[in-house]
Amino acid sequence: MYNNGSIADVETDDIESEVGESIYSRPLLIKRSNITSQIAIVGANVCSVESLDYEIPENDLVNEDLRLRRKIQVFQYVLLKWVFALIIGLSTGLVGIFSNIAVENIAGFKLLLTREFMQKHEYYKAFIVYAGCNLGLAASAAALCAFIAPSAAGSGIPEVKAYLNGVDAYSILAPSTLFVKIFGSICGVAAGFVVGKEGPMVHTGSCIASLLGQGGSRKYGLTWRWLRYFKNDRDRRDLITCGAAAGVAAAFRAPVGGVLFALEEAASWWRSALLWRTFFTTAVVAIVLRGFIEFCSSGNCGLFGEGGLIMYDISAAKVVYSAPDILAVILLGVIGGLLGSLYNYLVDKVLRTYSIINERGAAVKIVLVITISLLTSICSYGLPWLAKCIPCPDQVSTSCPNTDVSGNYKSFQCPPGHYNDLASLFLNTNDDAIRNLLSTNTAKEFHISSLLIFFGAVYFLGIITYGIAIPSGLFIPVILAGSCYGRLIGRLFEPVSKLDVGLFSLLGAASFLGGTMRMTVSLCVILLELTNDLLVLPLVMLVLLISKTMGDMFNKGVYDQIVKLKGLPYMEAHPEHYMKNLVARDVVTGPLITFCGVEKVGNIVLALRCTGHNGFPVVDEPPFSDAPELCGLVLRSHLLVLLKGKIFSRDRVLARNKILHKIVELDFAKGKGLKVEDLDIKEEEMDMYVDLHPIANTSPYAVVETMSLAKAAILFRELGLRHMFVIPKSQGRPPVVGILTRHDFMPEHILGLYPHIRYRK
Amino acid sequence: MYNNGSIADVETDDIESEVGESIYSRPLLIKRSNITSQIAIVGANVCSVESLDYEIPENDLVNEDLRLRRKIQVFQYVLLKWVFALIIGLSTGLVGIFSNIAVENIAGFKLLLTREFMQKHEYYKAFIVYAGCNLGLAASAAALCAFIAPSAAGSGIPEVKAYLNGVDAYSILAPSTLFVKIFGSICGVAAGFVVGKEGPMVHTGSCIASLLGQGGSRKYGLTWRWLRYFKNDRDRRDLITCGAAAGVAAAFRAPVGGVLFALEEAASWWRSALLWRTFFTTAVVAIVLRGFIEFCSSGNCGLFGEGGLIMYDISAAKVVYSAPDILAVILLGVIGGLLGSLYNYLVDKVLRTYSIINERGAAVKIVLVITISLLTSICSYGLPWLAKCIPCPDQVSTSCPNTDVSGNYKSFQCPPGHYNDLASLFLNTNDDAIRNLLSTNTAKEFHISSLLIFFGAVYFLGIITYGIAIPSGLFIPVILAGSCYGRLIGRLFEPVSKLDVGLFSLLGAASFLGGTMRMTVSLCVILLELTNDLLVLPLVMLVLLISKTMGDMFNKGVYDQIVKLKGLPYMEAHPEHYMKNLVARDVVTGPLITFCGVEKVGNIVLALRCTGHNGFPVVDEPPFSDAPELCGLVLRSHLLVLLKGKIFSRDRVLARNKILHKIVELDFAKGKGLKVEDLDIKEEEMDMYVDLHPIANTSPYAVVETMSLAKAAILFRELGLRHMFVIPKSQGRPPVVGILTRHDFMPEHILGLYPHIRYRK
Repeated sequence: MYNNGSIADVETDDIESEVGESIYSRPLLIKRSNITSQIAIVGANVCSVESLDYEIPENDLVNEDLRLRRKIQVFQYVLLKWVFALIIGLSTGLVGIFSNIAVENIAGFKLLLTREFMQKHEYYKAFIVYAGCNLGLAASAAALCAFIAPSAAGSGIPEVKAYLNGVDAYSILAPSTLFVKIFGSICGVAAGFVVGKEGPMVHTGSCIASLLGQGGSRKYGLTWRWLRYFKNDRDRRDLITCGAAAGVAAAFRAPVGGVLFALEEAASWWRSALLWRTFFTTAVVAIVLRGFIEFCSSGNCGLFGEGGLIMYDISAAKVVYSAPDILAVILLGVIGGLLGSLYNYLVDKVLRTYSIINERGAAVKIVLVITISLLTSICSYGLPWLAKCIPCPDQVSTSCPNTDVSGNYKSFQCPPGHYNDLASLFLNTNDDAIRNLLSTNTAKEFHISSLLIFFGAVYFLGIITYGIAIPSGLFIPVILAGSCYGRLIGRLFEPVSKLDVGLFSLLGAASFLGGTMRMTVSLCVILLELTNDLLVLPLVMLVLLISKTMGDMFNKGVYDQIVKLKGLPYMEAHPEHYMKNLVARDVVTGPLITFCGVEKVGNIVLALRCTGHNGFPVVDEPPFSDAPELCGLVLRSHLLVLLKGKIFSRDRVLARNKILHKIVELDFAKGKGLKVEDLDIKEEEMDMYVDLHPIANTSPYAVVETMSLAKAAILFRELGLRHMFVIPKSQGRPPVVGILTRHDFMPEHILGLYPHIRYRK
Repeated sequence: MYNNGSIADVETDDIESEVGESIYSRPLLIKRSNITSQIAIVGANVCSVESLDYEIPENDLVNEDLRLRRKIQVFQYVLLKWVFALIIGLSTGLVGIFSNIAVENIAGFKLLLTREFMQKHEYYKAFIVYAGCNLGLAASAAALCAFIAPSAAGSGIPEVKAYLNGVDAYSILAPSTLFVKIFGSICGVAAGFVVGKEGPMVHTGSCIASLLGQGGSRKYGLTWRWLRYFKNDRDRRDLITCGAAAGVAAAFRAPVGGVLFALEEAASWWRSALLWRTFFTTAVVAIVLRGFIEFCSSGNCGLFGEGGLIMYDISAAKVVYSAPDILAVILLGVIGGLLGSLYNYLVDKVLRTYSIINERGAAVKIVLVITISLLTSICSYGLPWLAKCIPCPDQVSTSCPNTDVSGNYKSFQCPPGHYNDLASLFLNTNDDAIRNLLSTNTAKEFHISSLLIFFGAVYFLGIITYGIAIPSGLFIPVILAGSCYGRLIGRLFEPVSKLDVGLFSLLGAASFLGGTMRMTVSLCVILLELTNDLLVLPLVMLVLLISKTMGDMFNKGVYDQIVKLKGLPYMEAHPEHYMKNLVARDVVTGPLITFCGVEKVGNIVLALRCTGHNGFPVVDEPPFSDAPELCGLVLRSHLLVLLKGKIFSRDRVLARNKILHKIVELDFAKGKGLKVEDLDIKEEEMDMYVDLHPIANTSPYAVVETMSLAKAAILFRELGLRHMFVIPKSQGRPPVVGILTRHDFMPEHILGLYPHIRYRK
């Protein structure tokens, strides 16, 4: 994922991301990218990024066009939104079920096969089978990723987050990405990597929503007419928010947690109406999952047993705590926060290294994946040999040693009546390992030394696995390491604390999650829905609060970090402190290209060819007004449609009615798919005129040039703008001083212009 | 509450609301209030409303002043916010406990006394005792409300909602209001009215937060120096959001529901940081309540038994449903939505009538309360006589007839071994009645005729009770009527549906809540936390979805309706449709008063005296600039502080340094407490000059006059502004065309200017 999107890739681009913000960067490009390259050395090229138009243009003609094209009443439109939410919920739920069944069956088969050889004491053969299966699965995942959809690598949550902020990264929501995300994730998780399928589920949900929103994929010939009602970025954004929430709901069976995740972490803007629709989507997911579990409980799903869909029951542990427990929990939170932020730091370093490696091509990517897979296999198979065989406890409900695919008390190399505690953690799916760690009333089941070994291995493997070319979620590695760490602390505090080690384990997971992801309420609710126990809520909150605070002292949350690393121009909710000392005028750079109200075709074509700007100011001049006057903003996409329609005139005259007549034919909504090269304008037409008034957005947001940059940034961010005019303060000057886009608010740009400004992190 | 805030009241106003937006309304006042009076005939005078400054001025001197005054570091400031959240949580939780114990004990004592006479068959005496207790309690509540704090009447949620939208209604968060809200609510609920303590709890939480935010009350001599750090409206808003969430959490024991309530219903703006702090507050409340319940469970709280803090356990009912059940539930939702919107309609009519009655004075208010109290007593005591005595069922876990204060199977007039089902509903606290209605596996306990009578009585009493001069929540009446209606439907569908009638009852309550309040996610989560059963979630969501949709077809949610009725200038999230056809210039009215950068003291004093404007544009003119140029916006409060400081000069010169020197002395944060009358400016000083540059906000938000009004409204709303400049499009005109405030966006104002615009509801 870290070396996609070079210019050469543009031709394979999906319909929606062809017109790049690419060269938008004006003459400043060189300067800016110098700085960018220092900060975002990862190959995510600026060319692959496009800003989204969340602002609906205020313009009679465009509105009329949308209205005609939509051909449905407001009621139907609203109904359709709900239908879409329903479809998103259903399909995300089904994908969640499918990938759960697939993972459990593939991994289960692999583990069964390994165990057979183990039981025959053919340990080398067992390793070869185990490592071979892992390798095969890993290679398939890597091949899918490297050749079909490089954007499907990684978690996907940072990209979805950036999309909802208004940045469309290269083919991040394309159908190929969806395909690879689903199957790559299944292979990757089944291959025994320390990765989860939760992040990919969020990305999957968003992809499904995006596909629905754009009415299928034109590239693959999968388009449905009746789906094409949401052609604007704003409606698409809402759908994708629903999709992200559905993904979390499907991953954790947490409908309320999903909504809160979308609200707290994913979305940059939120409306009350969206809250409800999102909740509806996640509820549909919850219902689908429930039906599926009932279906599978009668043994219809192969090896899919009680594992799979994670749901940890810690209700057996009595939640009673006193002062020393609270102290232990506080310590747990502090160390968890520190380890979490260290995790972020190391992931960042590893990602930077991998991005350089991955840039060398698909083959190198696959080799890297195979290397990590081998390393993982060696760890999982080799480390359990370090553990001593432990005699089975007398009174346990499950059999010991266990003969199931999942479960505690794995026998491994041990004699009958004994079990290997490390093998119960390593030679299991990640979900089952977490379940074992969170199990209550089993304080002595794992040795402290085993826990230490497992913690070290998982912490290390989690860090080096993220960033290789497979779909890889971050939730599970963090929960895995965190719950192991929590159990470790629990064992250490056993003499003084009355809390169950299973509970400590949960709190450890919470502290790690808080330390890396820095979400709070949504994590709290997700953990609540996972464990179904309201009584631990106060402790979980305490731990999350502490670990998040600790982590925030050192670095940003892992998703924010990845967004930054990828060079995506993410608009933060709060302006940087130094922006208070600058004014809007200070960051305006480069010459401004403006059009007249009725402009020569040749000028427009030239401007479209020579710049990558997506918005141009239109200025009325005599005879259309007394003095130069700002008329509005035209978008590149609308200009292209207008030029393609060829409504030109020999003289400089208004042509509103002419355009209004051809409005259905023109189809402004399609503008995003057009390029300058698609235009076929003859030489004599270049000297003709075209009236831009009908397509100009007559109410663009603008700030006075002396407006503090911080306040301009707040305006830009809160209203979800793509272009913002800067207008002069004093009179007698041209009516527009410049245009600000999201790039102009990026620290890299501002610090490039004013290197003396001290950049506090 | 509906006749407070006449001009005469201003003198008793609390420190924070002295400078009214009152006369701000410019010459247009007469015109506007004509229209307003048609729409908002309720006595809530426009004079009692003040807009809040959520925008932090960008201005060196004011910032410097705040910094010096604050005298604490950023870290301490952040820490303090958390400490405040803790205090809000603690105190709201404690108030919740106190009012619960008080209500349960008072009401319990009353019911015990009545029962004693009943058992002696002295039915008339029993009625006199019962009605007398009710009357006394009602009269005390009414007296508190009428004489001490008229603002404490009603639910309080609409006012809190308006405050968080930027409108400070008259003394709505004053200490007297808090006092009356707590004690009035206890008396009102104990008096057997069909009212709840949930809405008042939200208001109470907000009042506590507001008091903390302004550092106590100056009027009552309760100020603490160390509390006075949050002197700006923005921080206060955040605290009050926490307070509102804490209120819901305390009322329903629903920490997550509280957060979502604040998010969905109360707050108009939301930040991620706030989410976490709000959650912390509600968690503190939850912990406090939990400790209290453990304390009370050993019988330390008098008559406070398992009643009081509502928590309904329906987990005994198995949630299995098939197609006919779903149909029944859909029907339930449809009818519930219709009845809910009818409820809103009737409440609106009754409120309008009451407001006319209440305007006649405190005595009339009390008479009205007494009348309603008598009516309620007659209903609760009289109607059970219509019910037939039912023989006790054979196998029940509780005793029958019941001898407890609360509980099912009340004996009333029945012979031993029989019970009166209507008495179990009427002669109980509202909480216990709801618990009886929601009880599971008791399908035959209530006769259909009894349910019909109770439903009719509660629906009717709920409508006529809201609006009288006592603190009265709307949640409980709606839940009461809804759960009765749900049980009724459940009984009717008994032959075809497998769902328990207790479950139907819950769904009925949900449908009524959805139909009146129109909240969705927060209600869903509150009901979830109340019943502690995740399995009913899909059904509850379905019902809420249907009933909200049905209700929205007819009218607005009840809180929005009350906000409108009170004439509070609430900014809606979405601009009205007709605003798209207007531009900013169209709604600018009246002459504009501007100041020069260095202005004559006399002019300023005159302007302050003659207008009620709270913001004035400052325009630089030669020699300070080449041409007239917009310098910024000065606030009335800052002007008053500057004039009081008397930093005048004989000549027209800049005085930045002079003001900077005296900055600590001036204390701009105190400006809100000042009035023009407080100034003591001598005749000769009137001709001197004062430099306004240092106090002008140099980065006011502005729109070009041709900006569509809809977009201007979005800007105004999203950024939480109080003043917005309208600047000219063409050159050669004064640099400011006008100022827009929230009043200019109100439909009443716009429709007053353009009566031909059709106002679609």
